[in-house]
Amino acid sequence: MPSPVRPDRATAPETSHLAERFAAVRDLTLALAAPLSDADATVQSMADASPTKWHMAHTTWFFETFVLRDHVAGYALHDERFPFLFNSYYEAEGRRHARDRRGMVTRPSLDEVRAYRAHVDAAMLDALPGLSKDAQTLVALGCHHEEQHQELLVTDILHMFSENPLEPAMWPAARKVPVEMPAPIGWVSHEGGIVEVGHYGDGFAFDCEGPRHAALLAPHAIADRTVTNGEWAAFIADGGYTEARHWLADGWAWVKAEGIVAPLYWEQGEAGWTRFGLDGRRAIDPAAPVTHVSFFEADAYASWAGARLPTEFEWEAAAASYGANGGNQMDLAGPVEAPAGGKWSGVLRRCLGMDRQCVPALSEVRDCGGGC
Amino acid sequence: MPSPVRPDRATAPETSHLAERFAAVRDLTLALAAPLSDADATVQSMADASPTKWHMAHTTWFFETFVLRDHVAGYALHDERFPFLFNSYYEAEGRRHARDRRGMVTRPSLDEVRAYRAHVDAAMLDALPGLSKDAQTLVALGCHHEEQHQELLVTDILHMFSENPLEPAMWPAARKVPVEMPAPIGWVSHEGGIVEVGHYGDGFAFDCEGPRHAALLAPHAIADRTVTNGEWAAFIADGGYTEARHWLADGWAWVKAEGIVAPLYWEQGEAGWTRFGLDGRRAIDPAAPVTHVSFFEADAYASWAGARLPTEFEWEAAAASYGANGGNQMDLAGPVEAPAGGKWSGVLRRCLGMDRQCVPALSEVRDCGGGC
Amino acid sequence: MPSPVRPDRATAPETSHLAERFAAVRDLTLALAAPLSDADATVQSMADASPTKWHMAHTTWFFETFVLRDHVAGYALHDERFPFLFNSYYEAEGRRHARDRRGMVTRPSLDEVRAYRAHVDAAMLDALPGLSKDAQTLVALGCHHEEQHQELLVTDILHMFSENPLEPAMWPAARKVPVEMPAPIGWVSHEGGIVEVGHYGDGFAFDCEGPRHAALLAPHAIADRTVTNGEWAAFIADGGYTEARHWLADGWAWVKAEGIVAPLYWEQGEAGWTRFGLDGRRAIDPAAPVTHVSFFEADAYASWAGARLPTEFEWEAAAASYGANGGNQMDLAGPVEAPAGGKWSGVLRRCLGMDRQCVPALSEVRDCGGGC
Amino acid sequence: MPSPVRPDRATAPETSHLAERFAAVRDLTLALAAPLSDADATVQSMADASPTKWHMAHTTWFFETFVLRDHVAGYALHDERFPFLFNSYYEAEGRRHARDRRGMVTRPSLDEVRAYRAHVDAAMLDALPGLSKDAQTLVALGCHHEEQHQELLVTDILHMFSENPLEPAMWPAARKVPVEMPAPIGWVSHEGGIVEVGHYGDGFAFDCEGPRHAALLAPHAIADRTVTNGEWAAFIADGGYTEARHWLADGWAWVKAEGIVAPLYWEQGEAGWTRFGLDGRRAIDPAAPVTHVSFFEADAYASWAGARLPTEFEWEAAAASYGANGGNQMDLAGPVEAPAGGKWSGVLRRCLGMDRQCVPALSEVRDCGGGC
Repeated sequence: MPSPVRPDRATAPETSHLAERFAAVRDLTLALAAPLSDADATVQSMADASPTKWHMAHTTWFFETFVLRDHVAGYALHDERFPFLFNSYYEAEGRRHARDRRGMVTRPSLDEVRAYRAHVDAAMLDALPGLSKDAQTLVALGCHHEEQHQELLVTDILHMFSENPLEPAMWPAARKVPVEMPAPIGWVSHEGGIVEVGHYGDGFAFDCEGPRHAALLAPHAIADRTVTNGEWAAFIADGGYTEARHWLADGWAWVKAEGIVAPLYWEQGEAGWTRFGLDGRRAIDPAAPVTHVSFFEADAYASWAGARLPTEFEWEAAAASYGANGGNQMDLAGPVEAPAGGKWSGVLRRCLGMDRQCVPALSEVRDCGGGC
Repeated sequence: MPSPVRPDRATAPETSHLAERFAAVRDLTLALAAPLSDADATVQSMADASPTKWHMAHTTWFFETFVLRDHVAGYALHDERFPFLFNSYYEAEGRRHARDRRGMVTRPSLDEVRAYRAHVDAAMLDALPGLSKDAQTLVALGCHHEEQHQELLVTDILHMFSENPLEPAMWPAARKVPVEMPAPIGWVSHEGGIVEVGHYGDGFAFDCEGPRHAALLAPHAIADRTVTNGEWAAFIADGGYTEARHWLADGWAWVKAEGIVAPLYWEQGEAGWTRFGLDGRRAIDPAAPVTHVSFFEADAYASWAGARLPTEFEWEAAAASYGANGGNQMDLAGPVEAPAGGKWSGVLRRCLGMDRQCVPALSEVRDCGGGC
Repeated sequence: MPSPVRPDRATAPETSHLAERFAAVRDLTLALAAPLSDADATVQSMADASPTKWHMAHTTWFFETFVLRDHVAGYALHDERFPFLFNSYYEAEGRRHARDRRGMVTRPSLDEVRAYRAHVDAAMLDALPGLSKDAQTLVALGCHHEEQHQELLVTDILHMFSENPLEPAMWPAARKVPVEMPAPIGWVSHEGGIVEVGHYGDGFAFDCEGPRHAALLAPHAIADRTVTNGEWAAFIADGGYTEARHWLADGWAWVKAEGIVAPLYWEQGEAGWTRFGLDGRRAIDPAAPVTHVSFFEADAYASWAGARLPTEFEWEAAAASYGANGGNQMDLAGPVEAPAGGKWSGVLRRCLGMDRQCVPALSEVRDCGGGC
Repeated sequence: MPSPVRPDRATAPETSHLAERFAAVRDLTLALAAPLSDADATVQSMADASPTKWHMAHTTWFFETFVLRDHVAGYALHDERFPFLFNSYYEAEGRRHARDRRGMVTRPSLDEVRAYRAHVDAAMLDALPGLSKDAQTLVALGCHHEEQHQELLVTDILHMFSENPLEPAMWPAARKVPVEMPAPIGWVSHEGGIVEVGHYGDGFAFDCEGPRHAALLAPHAIADRTVTNGEWAAFIADGGYTEARHWLADGWAWVKAEGIVAPLYWEQGEAGWTRFGLDGRRAIDPAAPVTHVSFFEADAYASWAGARLPTEFEWEAAAASYGANGGNQMDLAGPVEAPAGGKWSGVLRRCLGMDRQCVPALSEVRDCGGGC
């Protein structure tokens, strides 16, 4: 059981919001990892994935190093050996354990990593009221950093469980209301022209989200929703994975070399397609958005559907219009209970750098003569 | 805590010895694994190694399949899914999990595997008094099979801990009396001629240990003890790993390609050579036999020492003369407490197929003119 | 000796220009290959390169297949077995020889490939006056296609000779007037805004060069000439290849993994840097443009120089202003004698898809406040 | 045309035989290479093979280095750069070109290598009458060394031609009398016991052929002839390559991984099995010995036939009884014309170290009770 971080320690008016935010983020990580055993949290299923325990400790190392060590007088490291183990790629912070051997670290145990988290959380909440503005900015950065790792954590643990022939379920079946079948795709036209993209305003943003700059869009139309599993199954049934003409040359070579016939984690059973998820193997939900498809697959689907993928800038222009409520995809991950009295706005961003993780949206190039 | 198998269940006079033997072997496996966490017992450090949990379950699967399933009416499998997970390479027993993915099986947990062992042990001890001669032979085979896996288990877990930058110790420091420095190597002459090799008598033997047959030995002399760590350090100090002339061509290529400079797990510290073992990293014991050297290293050492490695048949002839008490090397593995009242004669045989595991013994070819 | 193609066969006014063009292109290929032996023209130095003989035959196969076979009644293939050998990647044209085994084809010999060329050239020049407009378009395409292969041919043969420890020179030393040291780089400002890019007009263009479309440029300045070998040597001397901070992460990983310390074909001698070229190994010319650097190297250089690489569209905008005479880089390749009475305008385009072949140009992003 | 070496230069009685032998060996190499073009002799088809030109130059380098350079005062190297190119693996002779890049050496050309041979041959024949005994021994060694490379040369050039989709024939069809179908295999019994193996007498032998020593044979019977292509085809037809039970585990893994279905160079055509050879692709000769099978295939065949492969010592004992005329297999290689007036006894030994090159002979272990 994760011991909830107590936000009431941070009482100074100007930092109380930050303390709440910090506590919520830290608790969510514990909640996501709660169903895992020591072994579940230790094993690394491939070089591109990290063990849950590593995600839990690395995010803690971030706060310990850049806030406590650098900004809190007298702070003593919880364990002198941890920085070597839990630094990721910050070259300036010295040597670190090879990424593809993270799964060898059976010790410290999961409980010891939880103790590491508790130690750092307590020190952070003690320190927060007195932190400088610079240090507060680092706390905010660390919260976003940990949210990124939450996305990786659920992605990586899914991959690990998928490698177990028993296909264990991390969570019981979702008690969600069934998704209603959406209406056919509609097309949202954009007249093209110069648009502004990139972060603006005073809120937090990662380095790579700015600076805000102009981009030129061609006139186009973009789908008003994502592609469903049901539509993808129709693509498969229509020879989507067996006809070279839909695919980029490199994509087709990948399909042939790897024997790809469906999205990752899909399998064909007697009663149709199933997919493996954190709630185990279940029939695909034809109304839900397709997930775990690669760029090549998304591109081939778009080609089959008579469209193309949107450019980065077309996508940003479209996404910006969805507003604050449009992007919450955490409920896809599983039945996480938010900490009592808390609230969390965790938006699962696209997992960059992970194969086969993007959700395609369709874009149609229209031939706009004089009249459009 | 391993629950000791109760040998008192097997009361029939003709099988009581076998029941004791079975109980002792089964308990030793639990004792060897006792210091391990769930994560320790789950991780696979390389394709050539298996997780401890797998060794524990696979040896259990052997008894469940070939004794209980095949010879005990009404026996129900403990878990229908386990044969797929824990079969190793018995082609006739159907599909099995890929060897290099054994480390993905975080579930069943170590406790569940212990429960599997307890279930099968109880059924075995119930069944033993009534087993046919054929089935009893399979029990004896299974005990030897499990002893082989005990050797692999300690070898594999050592490799796994060695991959953790923290180099955790599985056992506290051995409380052994220090090994006395042995006398200089003496040479035991053999006049050559036809000798008999291979298993004989009524005792147990593996298939590959027979049939007994004749072999022709040249006159030779073989060292009367194994090479020590201290002698090996002298070899290193004398350029053993830096001069091509001691090495076979393939061995030299291996040394250059892999950057080999000492036996596996050795490191040079400020106070001299250390080695990593199940009791952590410690100074090498100059009086103890060298371990974790490959065939190529052993061959190079022998060449440096003005000798050569013995042939398989020279070794067998020499080993046969050591008698029943000569070969117990289990005490090298660590401070295992034998189950109360039990006794075990576990001889750690050479781990065939594992890189860098042989203990070299020296053989000198003498040029025997008329007088020898 | 290559037998020059006789353009006088194509006498019809409307096709005489195309015949001259065809003859000039075909003769240049022979001239480029003239110094090569049968073995030189056969060997393939890596999977990404093709033998000269293959380039010579493949370009011939193009005309034979798409013009003579498809548009000239009664044409008989020169050799029924050649299409399998000399098709490159036209899926619709059937099976073909594996790309990385092209160097196994010692037969047909270089002379036999020259005979193949002569046969097809004669048939082409006979046919040209009567070709339909569509077929004439294919002839023009084939000429451009062959010019692309001329670039590959000299690039590939250079690589092949560089793999010979004797480093043979294909051509004698260039009798060029020494290049004058250029003036320091000047910066050509561009105010940004929407520009048009892509092919326009009636002239020939490859598929990927259109359609013409708008692109948005930021205000920037681009260097008015390419980087010289002398400037690159200064980059090396200043730690260019030893400091991670100039490099993209993937680039730095490549530098470390491959031991990259200078542009391809450069070596440090007692008297300074030398480079290998088709005229053998010679001192670098500090005034000449640097060549054989990869994207990663170009990017690191630009970073070191306080600039960045131009975008594709910035480059296109800049290159468009150079006019018709600016781009001829054929003289870099060596002292080719144009066939008597002929003329050729062969422009060596950048060799896309070849590692380490781009010529970097610098672009500087200016922070344009109100005044620019 | 190779210019025949003139043995008449070596007139001193005590060396005239050696001069004849030298000339015959050198001429045979030229004769074997006579049908090859410059390109044929230059290309290297895999890392385990060497170009013909390399074989021709390396064997020449051997005489130039160890005889002329070391034993003939005033001899000047033909080309100072050749030792680097044509040394194979004599570590003491300094750096050498990487083995797997030998095919990059288009220059020197085949004609230049022939000139190198002619230069060294002339110097050798001049020097031979005055050579010391030690130097004469090196000449004899060099002749045997060159005969080994003749075997490699024909093996390697066959592989190279086999990689050309046109499958060119090096030689016209053999004008041999058809091989008569041999009688069924008979079995030659050996009563076992101690036999002597290894070189004896004053004749030449390679290092690895001695010293002569005793070996113990079990009673056995060995086939009185090699296995024929017809018998091998029966093995294939009976599921030889599709049933795991005939194969060693590593062999079966190789069959599955590589898709092996027949001996190397065999293909199934409409009229049955064909094989590729230096005389092109032809129907297999059912009466001729099977060739180009690996150890694994030979072992599987023997298992299928109810026998096993002979041990090295059983084979040596059997081969020794064949006498001087039994082993000439050069006629398998093709229609080589011996130099006029010469004679050659070239025996093609088994090409050790080459995949799939051994000729299996069958050995049957008999259970010899009292009566045998």
